[in-house]
Amino acid sequence: MASYDDVMSLSVRRGFLWPAAELYGGFGGFYDYGHNGVLLRRRWEDLWTETFLGLSDNYYLIDTTTILPEAALKASGHVDHFTDVLVTCTRCGESYRGDHLLEAATHVEEEGLTPAEIDARIRDLKIRCPNCKGELGPAREFNMMFPLGIGPTAKDRAYLRPETAQGVYLNFKREFEALRRKLPMGLAIVGRAYRNEISPRQGTYRMREFLQAELQIFFDPATFADFVPLDTSAGERIRIAWAAEKNEPTAHEIAAEAVVERGLPSWYVYHLLAVQRFYLAALRIPRDAFRFAELDEKERAFYNKIHFDIQIRQESLGGFREVGGVHYRTDHDLKGHEAGSHTKQAVTFGASKLVPHVLELSFGVDRNVWAVLDLAFAKGDRLVLRLPPRLAPVTVAVFPLVNKAGIPERAESIFASLRKRFTAFYDDSGSIGRRYARMDEIGTPFSVTVDHESLEGNGATVRERDSQKQIRVPEAELADAIAKLLSGETSVVP
Amino acid sequence: MASYDDVMSLSVRRGFLWPAAELYGGFGGFYDYGHNGVLLRRRWEDLWTETFLGLSDNYYLIDTTTILPEAALKASGHVDHFTDVLVTCTRCGESYRGDHLLEAATHVEEEGLTPAEIDARIRDLKIRCPNCKGELGPAREFNMMFPLGIGPTAKDRAYLRPETAQGVYLNFKREFEALRRKLPMGLAIVGRAYRNEISPRQGTYRMREFLQAELQIFFDPATFADFVPLDTSAGERIRIAWAAEKNEPTAHEIAAEAVVERGLPSWYVYHLLAVQRFYLAALRIPRDAFRFAELDEKERAFYNKIHFDIQIRQESLGGFREVGGVHYRTDHDLKGHEAGSHTKQAVTFGASKLVPHVLELSFGVDRNVWAVLDLAFAKGDRLVLRLPPRLAPVTVAVFPLVNKAGIPERAESIFASLRKRFTAFYDDSGSIGRRYARMDEIGTPFSVTVDHESLEGNGATVRERDSQKQIRVPEAELADAIAKLLSGETSVVP
Repeated sequence: MASYDDVMSLSVRRGFLWPAAELYGGFGGFYDYGHNGVLLRRRWEDLWTETFLGLSDNYYLIDTTTILPEAALKASGHVDHFTDVLVTCTRCGESYRGDHLLEAATHVEEEGLTPAEIDARIRDLKIRCPNCKGELGPAREFNMMFPLGIGPTAKDRAYLRPETAQGVYLNFKREFEALRRKLPMGLAIVGRAYRNEISPRQGTYRMREFLQAELQIFFDPATFADFVPLDTSAGERIRIAWAAEKNEPTAHEIAAEAVVERGLPSWYVYHLLAVQRFYLAALRIPRDAFRFAELDEKERAFYNKIHFDIQIRQESLGGFREVGGVHYRTDHDLKGHEAGSHTKQAVTFGASKLVPHVLELSFGVDRNVWAVLDLAFAKGDRLVLRLPPRLAPVTVAVFPLVNKAGIPERAESIFASLRKRFTAFYDDSGSIGRRYARMDEIGTPFSVTVDHESLEGNGATVRERDSQKQIRVPEAELADAIAKLLSGETSVVP
Repeated sequence: MASYDDVMSLSVRRGFLWPAAELYGGFGGFYDYGHNGVLLRRRWEDLWTETFLGLSDNYYLIDTTTILPEAALKASGHVDHFTDVLVTCTRCGESYRGDHLLEAATHVEEEGLTPAEIDARIRDLKIRCPNCKGELGPAREFNMMFPLGIGPTAKDRAYLRPETAQGVYLNFKREFEALRRKLPMGLAIVGRAYRNEISPRQGTYRMREFLQAELQIFFDPATFADFVPLDTSAGERIRIAWAAEKNEPTAHEIAAEAVVERGLPSWYVYHLLAVQRFYLAALRIPRDAFRFAELDEKERAFYNKIHFDIQIRQESLGGFREVGGVHYRTDHDLKGHEAGSHTKQAVTFGASKLVPHVLELSFGVDRNVWAVLDLAFAKGDRLVLRLPPRLAPVTVAVFPLVNKAGIPERAESIFASLRKRFTAFYDDSGSIGRRYARMDEIGTPFSVTVDHESLEGNGATVRERDSQKQIRVPEAELADAIAKLLSGETSVVP
């Protein structure tokens, strides 16, 4: 059970993340990652890439610019529709998101309302400025993209991309032609996106600069299901909260075939299962802390036909919060670019020529990192970050028990050899208890201590973080022992 | 010997990189990376990280926002001094970099001139607009950063960072305190930077959005040399072109101690050697294609006291071109932020309390990727990308010789097993010759072909890219054989 301050304070103190440009007061919605944060995030990204590129041998990596020309974002609909409703106080000038003003009054999520609807509700609920109690001005649409001018006269208009997806769509045909010319084809990207949020809040949850990991799957709707047959033999159940229940902390456990019977395409359900497996098996999120939340028509983005959020329950954020989504975007985007660029986007696949449809598996990397930190945070008589070993920034620490009698030299030699295979950390400062505690706080699963017995050929101790149990391992076998512990093949606890 | 068009055409066709947002005409200076480009770039980054974090166990990773508040870039000097000289045609309105106009006329690099000096030289050389022959207007300073407004009223001014370095400096103290509180401390970052170039040219060489890999080493100048003792026992020579020779295609081979005798600090020379080793040993750049180029006072950026460019000779770009630099930035940056933020940047280290000095090892990742492609490009009777095996996007390809008689099934099973350890690619389309050719063009070092003999327990053939020689390897030993070939431990050629 971690409060927001618990997680943030540990993050700052132990080099995971903190508000950016603090020296200059910074801005809301910007965070920097320290050494441990970069490593944790990278391990999450590696696991994500391995899992989702592993779904097919026709899935690949791509990387595109964060600056896009206005024409591209006009065609995608973002120039006209990527807006939030802005309400400004007529007295103090403070700006608010309309839906947040309503939510603060009603304690219920209020998504998808128009400026006129928000004005009406503000009148009904008699909401005044939270800052100065002044009268609120009329609500208006506010575009959340950051505009830029390119070149010396800044006459070429552009934007920082609001999602990684558009750059991928612009390159679909080039990649299709450079690759196997087969569908389904997947293009995965991990990169930054930018949104000029009106009022960033809850720290890292609503950021203005953030990292997305997205897999765009281009497919022929007539044949996609054949490529991803839904295997129900294991009886896997999917955890879902339906649209009407999204404000409740509940989830149903529904058999995959039952989800299909409700009208969702089997290829969509196949990918819900793949995403759920990623969270439960690879990231080891507790089952009851995971769910999909269905979005109804009003809540969905303008380009999505089917949309389930991926949610993780986080005490630090007050319950289930979105960390990603599974979006059936149809052929909306490629058709939009076809019209906007006057360039055909259809490709020939088998007997048909078509503009492919797109299924997007979208993940907010920062939100995922925060969720992992939240769930790992455990404070009892000691503070331990119970990260899954594969996600831990440091895999193995090496300590000399004392700094004399040849022990440091032996410890350094062990460190040098472990460092070749693992992210290792050498620490010789402070008592052994303090050194264990520092490693517990960054989630290091294994600590190797070199003592007098080590000099007599009796190996070193390996301590496991959660159980605090120790085993003695011969020096020559240390690296292999750590590898086996890391993979879960063996355990320190008998 | 590769022309620019040779390298770019291969890059586009084979999924390395191409101009961004082509569908919409794009802008100069923006490039997207396809599947093979992302993999090649990632391998370069991994090798870079392994090499430079490996220099010390007090060096770490960090990642910071690409958007920085104006106050931070005012303090760093970028708001006032990060400028190029802009010259605009009075008739057609086309804009030019002043130094480029001079260079086109004189064929000599012209760096560091003021607007008044450029005006005078334009008059002397009687230069007119290259586009319309009109008269050129007066030269003026042009700031190369992209400005942004944050928040709904855009009243908070910010910029896209022009270099990754500043975000690292802003976090120096936080990292120092979260870590060992020891100097030298290194912080490495791989991330994007942005420069609103007046006239991007030579494709990927001068980009407006680009990737930097930088290691910032914070140190006490009184003791740095003790931590990085210059070992001259191996008699390593450093390839250097002095400032006066920078337009010549030459380099001297100078003993490390002789470079120190010329007045460079031994810790600086230590890092020249480390960088040279990275290029010659890890990246396998031919020795005569590598050099450092000294910059004189006029050419150096305002924050650098000692500056050598890292240059690689690239036929596609017409000779030696900069791919990075080794910059002694003194305490300029931390002192600037101390003054700008009114926050002390001094730390206590041993007996002294000081604002650390900074040595920056800076690399343009895109420029490095291009240089690697240029040097690998080999066209004789076939087109081969002779990439060092560790950099190749695909490590091993798997082909069924024919698509019948159980051969594809066996090939797929081999592919599935190799894929667990290597980036592997399965290809069953076209003649075996065409499949080899496709892999040669993306630099795949090893291709495994499964044939009739494979079904009889006689293993598969492994073909090496450059020699085109083949060996037969038992199926169970394939993965280990590829691993040994990749590490250079064994070779296909006897």
